[in-house]
Amino acid sequence: MKITSLFNIKYPIIQGGMIWCSGWELASAVSNAGGLGLIGAGSMHPETLEIHIKKCKAATNKPFGVNVPLLYPQTDELMEIIVKEGVRIVFTSAGNPKKYTGWLKEKGVTVVHVVANKKFALKAAEAGVDAIVAEGFEAGGHNGYEETTTMVMIPMIREITNIPLIAAGGIASGKAMAAAMALGADGVQIGSLFAASKESSAHDNFKQKIVEAVDGSTHLALKKLVPVRLIENPFYHKVAEAEVKGADKTILAELLGKGRAKKGMFEGDIENGELEIGQTSVMIHDIKPVAQIMNELVADFNQTTKKMKDWRL
Amino acid sequence: MKITSLFNIKYPIIQGGMIWCSGWELASAVSNAGGLGLIGAGSMHPETLEIHIKKCKAATNKPFGVNVPLLYPQTDELMEIIVKEGVRIVFTSAGNPKKYTGWLKEKGVTVVHVVANKKFALKAAEAGVDAIVAEGFEAGGHNGYEETTTMVMIPMIREITNIPLIAAGGIASGKAMAAAMALGADGVQIGSLFAASKESSAHDNFKQKIVEAVDGSTHLALKKLVPVRLIENPFYHKVAEAEVKGADKTILAELLGKGRAKKGMFEGDIENGELEIGQTSVMIHDIKPVAQIMNELVADFNQTTKKMKDWRL
Repeated sequence: MKITSLFNIKYPIIQGGMIWCSGWELASAVSNAGGLGLIGAGSMHPETLEIHIKKCKAATNKPFGVNVPLLYPQTDELMEIIVKEGVRIVFTSAGNPKKYTGWLKEKGVTVVHVVANKKFALKAAEAGVDAIVAEGFEAGGHNGYEETTTMVMIPMIREITNIPLIAAGGIASGKAMAAAMALGADGVQIGSLFAASKESSAHDNFKQKIVEAVDGSTHLALKKLVPVRLIENPFYHKVAEAEVKGADKTILAELLGKGRAKKGMFEGDIENGELEIGQTSVMIHDIKPVAQIMNELVADFNQTTKKMKDWRL
Repeated sequence: MKITSLFNIKYPIIQGGMIWCSGWELASAVSNAGGLGLIGAGSMHPETLEIHIKKCKAATNKPFGVNVPLLYPQTDELMEIIVKEGVRIVFTSAGNPKKYTGWLKEKGVTVVHVVANKKFALKAAEAGVDAIVAEGFEAGGHNGYEETTTMVMIPMIREITNIPLIAAGGIASGKAMAAAMALGADGVQIGSLFAASKESSAHDNFKQKIVEAVDGSTHLALKKLVPVRLIENPFYHKVAEAEVKGADKTILAELLGKGRAKKGMFEGDIENGELEIGQTSVMIHDIKPVAQIMNELVADFNQTTKKMKDWRL
């Protein structure tokens, strides 16, 4: 398959590089289990990222990568460290794919860009990325303004480009993997399920919130600022109340303040923290080790595709 | 397959019973092509429904059904006509499945209820329906408050009940059919694609709007009233402006007024009308006859599942 040979991995499963959840421990566990682990640099200072890369290299001899959201002032320094440490795979998100793709590819790095609409998929393809992650409305964390779901997103992006395509949003089982690939994806990126894994660096309180999620527990919030999918908690309810009354960007930015994602997801303040997670949290019932998650995904995928071969109309 | 034997049809494809789009001409065309056609009674007075049922019976000897949203005062009369005319299949939506299921089943009618969350799926199963349609956030028209997408909805409902399950929302290709069935659905309900078909009773202006839709053209609107997915037009923009400012239920109800869906979808006033359609409109590029749509769906589904049989990890 395109995606496994692109990254030199066993299974077309990429672990999303999430802030506060995906340090070296999660990334190396996923890579060791045959997927592609990603360190989430979005919540890291350059020196922290350097430590995580070094630890990840020590913990796995399999390929792994780093996800870099292109919206922080220290992005140049993060990129320098990634190249210096010899990381071979970079996922960029939340910014212009033209900014670093050429430079990274010159250094021999495989570059993937995360998009949530058609316009940025074309922009990424033009920038020369090696693959695209297309993320649907159901995904956790930052999200697109168009609110296009994975079911519509994947065929829509597949229609306009032949570039290797990784589906994200709503995927937490081998059945959903098979579904994403039926829609035209070459592989999947899984976030929430790994955020709730044993090796995730998320606080146990946050993992517990994910496990307890019910139908409708997550919402796309802060749409006038940057849309982000959050799980309900007192902080979310404050935001929702303000939004219902028509709160503008300034009011929402004040409400959000600084450091709220760290407070919630990493420090475990589930009252006042910002808890970013996807709709699939409703399907996550246990906190499991990565190796078990990967085994279950692969077995479920194989069982699903085996069954489907008899589905002829 | 469960769904085809339940309805005695050839393909597990149900045409959504949409207001102003699905009269006898569309329903009979879908049934004649091997799917299950549904007359959408939501936009019909009892005497209109009677005419449509009679014409549908004359136009096909295959099974067809009627979709009845349970929110109009004339629902009792609609049900009486359905039973009197010998319709064997009824889809109910937008209301309590307990209200008519028992009564219809006593008359030998097969009953299906449309849901958009877990709670109503359980309620429908308890009411004794023969199947459930579970509709995701990407679907056109009225929609759930939870905003759960098809990718998450189907595994979530499949997990709690073994009842025959029909996926709706985001499905406009054989690939998406295969995806929905990989997720655990037994069949699919397709709306937008048939709304834009030659045999749809929608106005040509509306069909043209569907064909011209781009990424992000549809939005879930009127959330404080009843969430409904609309395509952008001057009416939608008025609603969106009011909502951004925090407009309440009363203001929105006034803005909506009466008869706006008919005005837009049936009479073709695409400036002032309410145009209900799903996200898949971005994937609909031509207005085709139903027979061609059905052939393409089946061929695409078979090609997809055939390819998938080699997908073993």
